[in-house]
This record gives sequence, C-alpha cells and structure tokens, in this order.
Amino acid sequence: MDYNAASLALHEKSVGKIEVVSKVAVENRDDLSLAYTPGVAQPCREISGERDEVYRYTAKGNLVAVVTDGTAVLGLGDIGPEAAMPVMEGKAILFKEFADVDAFPICLASTDVEDIVQSVKMIAPTFGGINLEDISAPRCMEIEERLKAELDIPVFHDDQHGTAIVVAAALINALKVVKKNLSEIRVVVNGAGAAGGAIIKLLLDLGVSDILACDKSGILCKGCGDNPAHLEALACLTNQGKCTGDLADAMVGADVFIGVSAGNVVSKEMVASMNKGAVVFAMANPTPEIMPDDARAAGAAVVGSGRSDFPNQVNNVLAFPGIFRGALDARAREINSAMTLATAYAIAGIIEDDELTAEYVIPDALDRRVGKKVAEAVKQAAFESGAATQKS
Amino acid sequence: MDYNAASLALHEKSVGKIEVVSKVAVENRDDLSLAYTPGVAQPCREISGERDEVYRYTAKGNLVAVVTDGTAVLGLGDIGPEAAMPVMEGKAILFKEFADVDAFPICLASTDVEDIVQSVKMIAPTFGGINLEDISAPRCMEIEERLKAELDIPVFHDDQHGTAIVVAAALINALKVVKKNLSEIRVVVNGAGAAGGAIIKLLLDLGVSDILACDKSGILCKGCGDNPAHLEALACLTNQGKCTGDLADAMVGADVFIGVSAGNVVSKEMVASMNKGAVVFAMANPTPEIMPDDARAAGAAVVGSGRSDFPNQVNNVLAFPGIFRGALDARAREINSAMTLATAYAIAGIIEDDELTAEYVIPDALDRRVGKKVAEAVKQAAFESGAATQKS
Repeated sequence: MDYNAASLALHEKSVGKIEVVSKVAVENRDDLSLAYTPGVAQPCREISGERDEVYRYTAKGNLVAVVTDGTAVLGLGDIGPEAAMPVMEGKAILFKEFADVDAFPICLASTDVEDIVQSVKMIAPTFGGINLEDISAPRCMEIEERLKAELDIPVFHDDQHGTAIVVAAALINALKVVKKNLSEIRVVVNGAGAAGGAIIKLLLDLGVSDILACDKSGILCKGCGDNPAHLEALACLTNQGKCTGDLADAMVGADVFIGVSAGNVVSKEMVASMNKGAVVFAMANPTPEIMPDDARAAGAAVVGSGRSDFPNQVNNVLAFPGIFRGALDARAREINSAMTLATAYAIAGIIEDDELTAEYVIPDALDRRVGKKVAEAVKQAAFESGAATQKS
Repeated sequence: MDYNAASLALHEKSVGKIEVVSKVAVENRDDLSLAYTPGVAQPCREISGERDEVYRYTAKGNLVAVVTDGTAVLGLGDIGPEAAMPVMEGKAILFKEFADVDAFPICLASTDVEDIVQSVKMIAPTFGGINLEDISAPRCMEIEERLKAELDIPVFHDDQHGTAIVVAAALINALKVVKKNLSEIRVVVNGAGAAGGAIIKLLLDLGVSDILACDKSGILCKGCGDNPAHLEALACLTNQGKCTGDLADAMVGADVFIGVSAGNVVSKEMVASMNKGAVVFAMANPTPEIMPDDARAAGAAVVGSGRSDFPNQVNNVLAFPGIFRGALDARAREINSAMTLATAYAIAGIIEDDELTAEYVIPDALDRRVGKKVAEAVKQAAFESGAATQKS
C-alpha cells in the first residue's frame, strides 16, 4: 500500500482525526438544565469549596494534553506547530483506543523554553496529565524537568521515556533468549538525543552497568572532548573505562546495540564484531541503522527495529497509553522511575517464557492486553513509590 | 426537580461531560499506518509546505477553545479555573450538539491580562476559533481586543456579544409586536459590565440612537462623574441629552428596559412609568431585575428574562454555536459587527410574523433550526464584509 497517498486521502476525507463529544444527553430542557445552567452551578460550587473535587465532577482526571512545538516531528525535523498537528491527533486517538484516555493536541506557537513552560502551566488546570511530544533536544529535557518540578500532575516526554521503556522491555526478553544477565552485558547506545539519554538512564535503573554512548563524533567520554552539558552528563553516566574511538570501535565485543540515530550507520562487519548472542535494536525511522535481515545475516541473535514490517517492532504505543491510564487512575503526582521500570517489566511480561523466541521478544503493537497490564503495574508502582496516595 | 442535586449526581456519574474520540478506524495495522506512522508523515509534509493546508488535513478548522480564567462564572464570581470547568465542558457539549463544533475547555491558571493573551496566542495553532468565557470585566474587553488584533482566527467573548445578539434578536421581534421602530425608541440598559457594553454597541449598530446606560450609581453621563475608562466610553456612546439621576429616573418614558445587572432592582412602579407598549428584558440570573409576572402586571407589553420557566428566554445558546459554525465554515479571520448583526436578524427571523406574539418573540433554546440558519447568515456576512475570502 502507498501509505503516503492513502494517509493523505484519509486525513482529507475526515478533516482530521479527533472530535469532542458529549458523554451526557443534551436533548431536552431538563438535560440542558443539568448539564448546563442552572444545575451546573452546583458542581462549580463544590469544586470552588474543595479544589480536588474537580477530579470527581469534571473530565480533568481523564484529560491529557499532547503538547508539542513542532520542532522534532517524526523524522521530519522542525516543521512547526501546524504541521505537527496530524501526529498529535494520531497520538490522541491512540490514547483513546488503547487506554480510554481523552487526549487533546496542544500545538504551541513558540519554541522558547520559557514560553512553553509557562503555557503548559497556564493550561494545566484543564488536564490530568501532560504528554510532551516531538520537542527537539536538549530543550525537551529542560522543559520536562521544569514542568515536573512545577506541576502536580504527571508530565511525560514520550520521545524520551516511551522509547526507553519499550526498548528496555524488549531487552529484558531478548536477554532471556540469549541467556545473559542485565548486570553482565555491554551495551552500545548510538544516538545521544532525547531517546538515547533516556534509554541510558533506564538501563542503569534496570541494573546495566557497562554502557557506551556514541554520537556522530564517536564514543562519549567524560572530559575527553568539548561536549555540551547534556552530552557530558551522559558521558559521566557511561564509559567507566574511558574508551575512545568511533561507533565501530564501540561495537567490538558488545552484547547489545541500541540505535536511535540515523539510517545505515551500522555495517554487517560491525555486527559481526559483537559478542556471541548479540542483540541489535536498530530503531532509526524509516531506515534503520542496519536492516534487520542484514543484522541477522551478520550473526545477531535477536533483532528489533522501529518498523512494522519486520519482527520485534519497538513501538511507543505499547507504553504511553497504559502509563497514563495507570497514572491517572492512581491520580499520581508524577511518573517516576519506579513507574517506568514497572512498565518495562509489564510489557516484557506479556510474553510468557515458553512463547519467547528471537523473533518475538516484544508484544505486537496492537496487542490489547498490554495497555491494561501496564496500567495496573503503573498504578501499583505509583502507590508503592509514593507518587500517589491510596484513598482509604 | 432539584437541579442542583441532580446535576451533581449526573456530573459524578459521568465524571465530567466531554470525551475526545477518533473519527477514523484504529483497529488493524493498516489503520495505524495511515492514522499514525508512517502514513501520517504525508499530511505533515503537506502542511509544512503550505501552512493553510492544516485546515484540509487536521481538525483545527473545527476546533474551538472555550477559554476562561474562572473569574466571572455564572453568578458565582471568581471561583478559579478548576471550578469553572463544569461550565466550560457544558459549553463544549452545546457547541457540539447545536452546531457540530468540536469545542474544548481551556481553564487558565492566571487572571493576568498579559498571561491570558500570551497563553491563548501560544495555543492558537491548534484551534480554528477562540471563545472567551466567564472572564470578569473590564479585563475581558482588553483581552478580547488584544486577541482579535493579534490572531488571525475568530475570537469571540460570548458573555459580551452572545448576550447582546440574543437581546437584539428579541428586541427586533418585540418592536414588531408593539409596532415601534428601532430608530425612535428610548432604551435603558441597566448594568454596564461586559454584557451591558456589548448590548449598547450592538443596539447602536442596529440603528437605536437614544440609549441611557445605568450602573449602580445611576445614569452614566459623559464628564458627569469620576468614571473609569470603560464606563466613560459607554457614557460617550449614550445619553446625548446628558440626563442625570438614578435608574427610576431613566425609566420614566422609556420604551425598552434591558437589565443585565442584579435581582430585584426594578419595581412595578418603575415599569408603570415607562412609555406605552413597554418592552422589559430582565436578564439577571437566577433572580431577574423584576419577575416577569410583575413586569406584565405593571403594564409591560413584552417581557423576557434569562429563565427557562418563563416565556421569551434570552439564552446565548441561540447564538454562539451557529456563529462559530458559520465563521469556521467561511474560515473567517474574525467575527465582526456585520456577522453579529446578521446573527441577530437570523435568530429573529426564525419566527414568522404571523407566529409572533408578546410571549413568543424569541425562538426556544432547543429550536434546532436556529444554529443552521445562524451559520448560513454568518457565513454570508463573513464573505460580504470581507472577514473571509470566498474560495474560487
């Protein structure tokens, strides 16, 4: 199928993908008097008396803003807020479809960090959570950190943590296939943007200790170059042995390659130089760092990519709907590392040990069991970690 | 029915009133590939190339933000953005029900004019129009003026113009009943807030020339007192004879009383002092300036109020859904006075001359013909007035 032409036709025919509908009847005078004036004054009074009642009487607790400034949309780069709208609408309908979350696109007319932070804080009373989307690095990290600190509702940058969680889930299962432990593997992460940084941090939380981070200039090494702050921060978290060199050097003897970089930057020879039982997740889109067939031909034992036309698709839709469902259900104040770890294990756990194969380390993107299981795990983790308070 | 208790129960059961749903199928892998990646990249590219294509491929052109800061909600006053949410959700479902407009509440965490203007400008790329709601005067006027000047999508403060339009429609028909002309009547407008000011301006646009505006301190008179700027502006537009006195003085010999003030401020004696064939629209909520039965008993020929339990209910729902439907359909850059005048005449015109009675000068709030007729009139007025450009 020519997805481009068909997608264009679909979008034109439906004129976008979302609509805002009523959950209550609006047919007769009584309906109007209850849903609107004069009856509506009563829930207003209750919330005015006790602000938390907004979760009882309004949609806030199920509303998530999908916020972007349009600077890092798909592989298209900085295309502006209007052009980002189809992706944000797409995200919104996935939220609804997979977790019954009511998500709404908010495409912002500025790329300034302060403007974005202030705008999101201003609109926060409407929402139960904030999903940041397709905001370019490193601004996305500062924006997320600021908003997490300044808001009392969950803030989640999906390009960072969603990707990291699904990679982690895939890795947990891949290591079962190749019979290795998280604590003993060497991982190469290529791409030190939003996703790469989040992957590294989540791998460390999972118990991986030996990580090399690479970007276009090669292996990141603490104090070895003139790195900007966010790269130096990653260098400090990785490469304890202070290795230097390029990506090919990094991959020699590595157990796992995780690519969130660009197409065709990994050769068969580089995969062949990895340790036995190598795991390759090549997630650049639409062209992976190395095509899955080539990676397998070069000896990789488990291969995944971002593409739906090969096995083991790493797709964020496995994570974000259930995460917000769980966070909203718990009325969590944040999405913390305990909740992201719980998500990774919940996604991995969908596949029973006796179902696991090299070509099935991650559930299908359309697997309806995932959202529910993730939501339960996230909710429990929220209570256990103190991100939410169990109601008596 | 106890609307308060029943409304509270309804809101709690449905947990708010709006949800965000998909207009397209999201069931299989192909659906995902068209609505989301990889297909969604194509509408993004088209819009990136030509920004106006956002109206072709996204929901923007049918999305209206219902924006408030929660400072003037119903008769409840400054109850804050969270407590305003039930009203904004109510407005959103009326938009959908009466004009298939997808409206979404945006409750803002600041009451500062600059904050509000900046926030609305920041989120504007998502929306085809902005409905300002329940923002206290005089800030609401400055906010609307600023946004109208700085945005290229329609901005409409319903508490000002929605009320004014429906009052004007009722007045047009009421004058037919009492056989008077707009150009020869004396009108008293009591209440010089957002609605009062807009009513005065719309009456002037309609051709009424003799208006007295009153507030708590009496008749507004240019240069006669120490009026704040927005009241002095109204004084300049009214009271050419420089009358002074209180509301009772103003009403002697008047043809029309329009109240957007407070309950029980008009006595039977004051109505009895009006000209023969007096028209009284007493719209304070929930208690009118004078109860409709009392106004009739005192000799008023046509009486209307904001209440649904008396004839001639002045209800904004007759205006705002159709206005936005028409403005969005025309892709108008603004909602100008030609469009508001057209709306008033369209609403009035729903009632045929042979149906007109003193108790039926305005269509029922649930009359489904109104939204469609208003939309057509607004669309035509938008093209004729240059607020929109007809596509060839």
